[in-house]
Amino acid sequence: MTIKNYTLLLVVLLFSGCCVNTSRVDSEPLSSWNEGPSKQRILSFVAAVTDKSNPDYVPPAERIATFDNDGTLWSERPVYFQLLFAIDRVKALAPQHPEWYSSQPFKAVLENDREALIASGERGLLELIMATHSGNTTEEFSQIVKDWLVTARHPKFNRPYTKLVYQPMLELLSFLRANSFKTFIVSGGGIDFMRPWTEQVYNIPPEQVIGSSIKTKWELRDGQPVLVRIPEINFFNDKAGKPVAIHQYIGRRPIASFGNSDGDLQMLQWTAAGEGKRLMVLIHHTDERREYAYDRDSHIGKLDKALDVAQQNNWSLVDMKQDWKVIYPAVKTQ
Amino acid sequence: MTIKNYTLLLVVLLFSGCCVNTSRVDSEPLSSWNEGPSKQRILSFVAAVTDKSNPDYVPPAERIATFDNDGTLWSERPVYFQLLFAIDRVKALAPQHPEWYSSQPFKAVLENDREALIASGERGLLELIMATHSGNTTEEFSQIVKDWLVTARHPKFNRPYTKLVYQPMLELLSFLRANSFKTFIVSGGGIDFMRPWTEQVYNIPPEQVIGSSIKTKWELRDGQPVLVRIPEINFFNDKAGKPVAIHQYIGRRPIASFGNSDGDLQMLQWTAAGEGKRLMVLIHHTDERREYAYDRDSHIGKLDKALDVAQQNNWSLVDMKQDWKVIYPAVKTQ
Repeated sequence: MTIKNYTLLLVVLLFSGCCVNTSRVDSEPLSSWNEGPSKQRILSFVAAVTDKSNPDYVPPAERIATFDNDGTLWSERPVYFQLLFAIDRVKALAPQHPEWYSSQPFKAVLENDREALIASGERGLLELIMATHSGNTTEEFSQIVKDWLVTARHPKFNRPYTKLVYQPMLELLSFLRANSFKTFIVSGGGIDFMRPWTEQVYNIPPEQVIGSSIKTKWELRDGQPVLVRIPEINFFNDKAGKPVAIHQYIGRRPIASFGNSDGDLQMLQWTAAGEGKRLMVLIHHTDERREYAYDRDSHIGKLDKALDVAQQNNWSLVDMKQDWKVIYPAVKTQ
Repeated sequence: MTIKNYTLLLVVLLFSGCCVNTSRVDSEPLSSWNEGPSKQRILSFVAAVTDKSNPDYVPPAERIATFDNDGTLWSERPVYFQLLFAIDRVKALAPQHPEWYSSQPFKAVLENDREALIASGERGLLELIMATHSGNTTEEFSQIVKDWLVTARHPKFNRPYTKLVYQPMLELLSFLRANSFKTFIVSGGGIDFMRPWTEQVYNIPPEQVIGSSIKTKWELRDGQPVLVRIPEINFFNDKAGKPVAIHQYIGRRPIASFGNSDGDLQMLQWTAAGEGKRLMVLIHHTDERREYAYDRDSHIGKLDKALDVAQQNNWSLVDMKQDWKVIYPAVKTQ
């Protein structure tokens, strides 16, 4: 073979994709992350578990990473976006429910009475969710969520909610997948509230989304089967519910987990308790200017006990203000 | 470029994997299937949904295929293999449970009293399952299943149960995956009874296995978290439960489904009711010599109503005796 032929061979091999896994070629992974221990911890973890000569090597099938959603992949203030969806749904459905104008918590929503809404407590919120998330088929509900996301805007940032996802976390999801991780959402939020948009926004398909759920019921309508959403809790995916759901849905233990609140503590403990190298990360909301700053005293996304456990066990604490160059993806001005 | 160079280029391209997706190159897919309408239906369905120029084209992410397990991927006679596991567990655990020697259904098992066991009915079988499937951690149970499979042998075929999977179905699973399908098990059997071996036997990872389940409970033991299996039904994945579970676990509708009994009817109806080209297949047990022959009058794997619906709707009926060259994988003689 001549030198010219060798050159040709080399060129062809380079461009044919046979030897270079292009999905892994990323000249600067995590480019929205500032240099520092948080970024370094992620990079060295991934380097270790993907290197066959490293004692911490993990085969691709076992590279499971689980992510909380609210406060970890997108914002959760002033309140969980799903609650804002429920409030908008109460207003949209009120004409068909005249009784709501005189009964709490619906009256509070319709009169924009924040105090009364808060006073209705968890029970009131649950009533709101049940009334607005059931009674339709699974396909109808999915379409309602999609339609809402098109027009709804965040009160502080005036952006679609799907543009309030964290750019550094989008890069982290891509980076992990490029290294043969399978990325899952494990959220306290509603599974059917997330699935209509997670594939487009996070590149996470519905079968890798785990969340809280209400029950559904099989029905034949004019011979056509539908699944009807009924106002009954099926599973509440928070705190100890998260490892229970991880076992139920995934059936193996994650080697990396990402959360931001006490609701994620057990998921991170479950991850940490496995054998071999593990990565446990808490997103700490420290950026009042660019997003919000809150932890121990917050009603939403309270980070108190998990903060102590993270410090005791040397888990990674991401300081949003220090560690992230940007919070949200760039949005074109119109 | 000289002709010699073109030749080199061609050779390199062929062997570099850039243009030929080697995972799809299968000179004879479904080689254990006899030529005929069953094989042809599968081949033409896959050809249609994977061809971008075909109006029935389906993008890879939507290529979801669901498979029942008992009687569809492996045998289910003389009784579900999981029940044989439960019976062996009762015998193994009896020394720790002296009360079992005098109470049904345990007494029946310990005395090999088949009549009394059948007389204990569904309630008795449920008691057997609960007693033998709970009380340990998820990891302990997984190990117990693996250990049992090593030594247990089928009463008729004297083979390990994992060698009583259907060779033509193994080829079908591979063929679908080579065409970018994601293959799921959706079984009435126990999810934690299947997951310890489905990856090795079917190449289906635990996160793609759906089944019936009991509840688990988070506990800290000496500071280490465990999930303890408790004797309480979580979900019974049969009949209308199958589409409910498909929605809950997968979150999108399969385009192809495979079953063998009335327990699979709703899963196939749910699959059929989606838009676009669909494939619904029932495995019909017609081979008394090589396996078993049963349908409308069987207690295990009863195929009656679903057989009518399949015939009315022109679903595919696989005749095991006619359509399959072999039933089980070849096993080396020792």
